[in-house]
Amino acid sequence: MATEQPRRRADAERNAETILSVTRDLLVGGSAPTMSEVAAAAGVTRMTLYGHFATREVLLEAVVRRAVAETDDALIALDLDALDVDEALDRLVRTSWPMLDRHRKVRLAAIDQLGHAALRDQHDAAFRHVDQLIARGQKDGVYRADLTREWLVATFYAVLHAAADEVDAGRLTSEAAPTTLVATLRSLLHAQ
Amino acid sequence: MATEQPRRRADAERNAETILSVTRDLLVGGSAPTMSEVAAAAGVTRMTLYGHFATREVLLEAVVRRAVAETDDALIALDLDALDVDEALDRLVRTSWPMLDRHRKVRLAAIDQLGHAALRDQHDAAFRHVDQLIARGQKDGVYRADLTREWLVATFYAVLHAAADEVDAGRLTSEAAPTTLVATLRSLLHAQ
Repeated sequence: MATEQPRRRADAERNAETILSVTRDLLVGGSAPTMSEVAAAAGVTRMTLYGHFATREVLLEAVVRRAVAETDDALIALDLDALDVDEALDRLVRTSWPMLDRHRKVRLAAIDQLGHAALRDQHDAAFRHVDQLIARGQKDGVYRADLTREWLVATFYAVLHAAADEVDAGRLTSEAAPTTLVATLRSLLHAQ
Repeated sequence: MATEQPRRRADAERNAETILSVTRDLLVGGSAPTMSEVAAAAGVTRMTLYGHFATREVLLEAVVRRAVAETDDALIALDLDALDVDEALDRLVRTSWPMLDRHRKVRLAAIDQLGHAALRDQHDAAFRHVDQLIARGQKDGVYRADLTREWLVATFYAVLHAAADEVDAGRLTSEAAPTTLVATLRSLLHAQ
């Protein structure tokens, strides 16, 4: 019994992790899986699935929360504060683009399933990193001061979303997007 | 009879014009007017209203079409091709901002009422002016060539929409928006 408990806990964690990954992949793939489909794809019983996630809504919210946390972890690991702001911008965009691109698909699928209200509290994980970078660039006199930080953050996001839309429309490749974004954002953030 | 016909036609045109203006104002004001409400606000009978616009959908589409045409006419009148590109950008933004802002509210209200499909063919009137300006700037070597025209047009629009969103959120005033937009778009379009 004393040795069984930790193993059971490890199994349970592995199951939860598998369920979340499988659900994310199904959402990214464009399907709106039922709980039975998730259980089948994850190779667990419906009882195990419901033991981890009481409802489909709870499961979808957990998938979005995990995507947000993954992006945040990756950006924390970059240690942007230790880099020159332009170098930090480059790393921020190149690291977060593929995650934002995937996260966006998960989020759109989840919104489609749950509605906006359910995801109200799920913030964009990259937000504070972008905000901090722009604040530092302005403080150091590298980024422009003729426009407010709030506006620069808003345009930063608008340009990111434009790139995602252009990729969806087939006018930009996902591979070319980071280079295009870095060139665009650099001009935007520096005074002319 | 020969003198009655032209006057009747002039009255009819005035009525149609009044109906369109009143409907636009009701939509901008946030209401979703019924045909009876439109007739009352325009001071015409329901019979006169239905004589001009057979259905509510036809009326809403006509309101959007008129807003698009107004913006287009105003931009044509600027004769942007005769101006230096940076001056043309300044005029384009300052002239179209208030119209785009209002047009956007009309369009959103109409989409809410009619759905996206009904407005599928209603293009943004400013689009070809923006596209032409950027093409000329790139051809003349004033605007950057490291990014495609399509991408610069997409980011131009993304930044315009960001301004509208920031105004809606109360973080930017509608009066300050054109100056902010010109400064932002100028940096975006010029090579760094």
